[in-house]
Amino acid sequence: MKNEIYIVGMGPGREEMMTGEAVYALEQADVIVGYTTYLKLLGQRFQGKELLSTPMRQEKERCRLCFEEAEKGKKAALVCSGDAGIYGLASLMYEIGREYPETELFVIAGITAASSGAAVLGAPLNHDFCVVSLSDLLTPWEKIEKRLEAAAAGDFVIVLYNPSSHKRKDYLMRACDILLRRIEEERICGYVENIGREGTRANICTLKQLKEREVNMFTTVFIGSSGSENINGKFVTRRGYKIEKNTDICGNN
Amino acid sequence: MKNEIYIVGMGPGREEMMTGEAVYALEQADVIVGYTTYLKLLGQRFQGKELLSTPMRQEKERCRLCFEEAEKGKKAALVCSGDAGIYGLASLMYEIGREYPETELFVIAGITAASSGAAVLGAPLNHDFCVVSLSDLLTPWEKIEKRLEAAAAGDFVIVLYNPSSHKRKDYLMRACDILLRRIEEERICGYVENIGREGTRANICTLKQLKEREVNMFTTVFIGSSGSENINGKFVTRRGYKIEKNTDICGNN
Repeated sequence: MKNEIYIVGMGPGREEMMTGEAVYALEQADVIVGYTTYLKLLGQRFQGKELLSTPMRQEKERCRLCFEEAEKGKKAALVCSGDAGIYGLASLMYEIGREYPETELFVIAGITAASSGAAVLGAPLNHDFCVVSLSDLLTPWEKIEKRLEAAAAGDFVIVLYNPSSHKRKDYLMRACDILLRRIEEERICGYVENIGREGTRANICTLKQLKEREVNMFTTVFIGSSGSENINGKFVTRRGYKIEKNTDICGNN
Repeated sequence: MKNEIYIVGMGPGREEMMTGEAVYALEQADVIVGYTTYLKLLGQRFQGKELLSTPMRQEKERCRLCFEEAEKGKKAALVCSGDAGIYGLASLMYEIGREYPETELFVIAGITAASSGAAVLGAPLNHDFCVVSLSDLLTPWEKIEKRLEAAAAGDFVIVLYNPSSHKRKDYLMRACDILLRRIEEERICGYVENIGREGTRANICTLKQLKEREVNMFTTVFIGSSGSENINGKFVTRRGYKIEKNTDICGNN
């Protein structure tokens, strides 16, 4: 029988925002591996398990730790915030997994910040959207710039992950400058700080205002499409462009 | 006190894939409104509640039904598959909600097919991605075409919702033709049928092959970026373009 590792998306943080499947995977695990911050967010009942961490920035080591624990015959789970497959460690696990052919990986989906942030703001993602990370740790800035241009050209709603950090305080401003080449200053935008954790704060503004805002790294930013509007303080994107008839397109979302 | 309606994303279908928060909202509700198919997917313990539906394609009536029930003083919940804010009824609820200023709306995020499908395929969304619906019920096809072009130009991973229906059997083929103008024939693609329900089936192929495939409306399609590859039968997108050092970018996802 193959070893198994469950790669679990915790959602924004609180256990109520994990799926039943994710909670079950953690309950079954002998050892839970994760970045310290996320391990601390786990409920009391998981604190009795073997919890293993590696220091910040040691992601490869954290992944290897999982494989090593699984090879000892333990049921191992790796936790990531949000969805482990969206800017999380799932792909790195598959890459490193090439060296561990006896171990099978299972990804358990979680609520990513695009979904949880959207729910706080209203319904900004109710039509086609793009997700772009402003982190240039692993991606050249020119590539990020090209993606922002394409997203604006396609009239997508745009979600920005990692909009800022200590070292890149002006990245959101630079991103807004690129978007302002195609999008009008008054376009509705929104951002949510500390989604699903203490101090959740939602803000709605224009693209011009967004450019001047300072946000921290625990913030997710939303830029509207031409179909977005402010309805009584909520950021809402219409489902389509045609005049709505009675149609049912609620399927397969 | 204001009336309250909870707009609940059920995820792909099985209760284990709902968040604790979503389950709690349904447990608290006096009346649950939804399309018949989704009401049937709800677990046995919800079948004792007042369950209300409107025929297919009567989405506005379904939304109004919620507001009318809430105005009677009932705790009302509206269920959508996936995330109610991603091609679901959340935005329509806010639009119709203009006529019901005494009712407050709360969106409870759910696992959308991009997340749940990605988990089945491996880790295709581990870097920037776009979500595009091929349904032209409410969006002109020219707009969809423009978005596909922009998504390809930006080298995004692309997720297609509603790739087909009885009336639009060739839409996926038309979408692939547009993408093939910029993306090579051998680019990795994948699609998942009946995610999280009986008969879940994952398929990995090339863009050229995808063009010839017939998929049903319960299918979500993924087209890789230049950073995507096939690792032992899994569809994996690298987290970045630079050679990986030991960096921690797992935050805020």
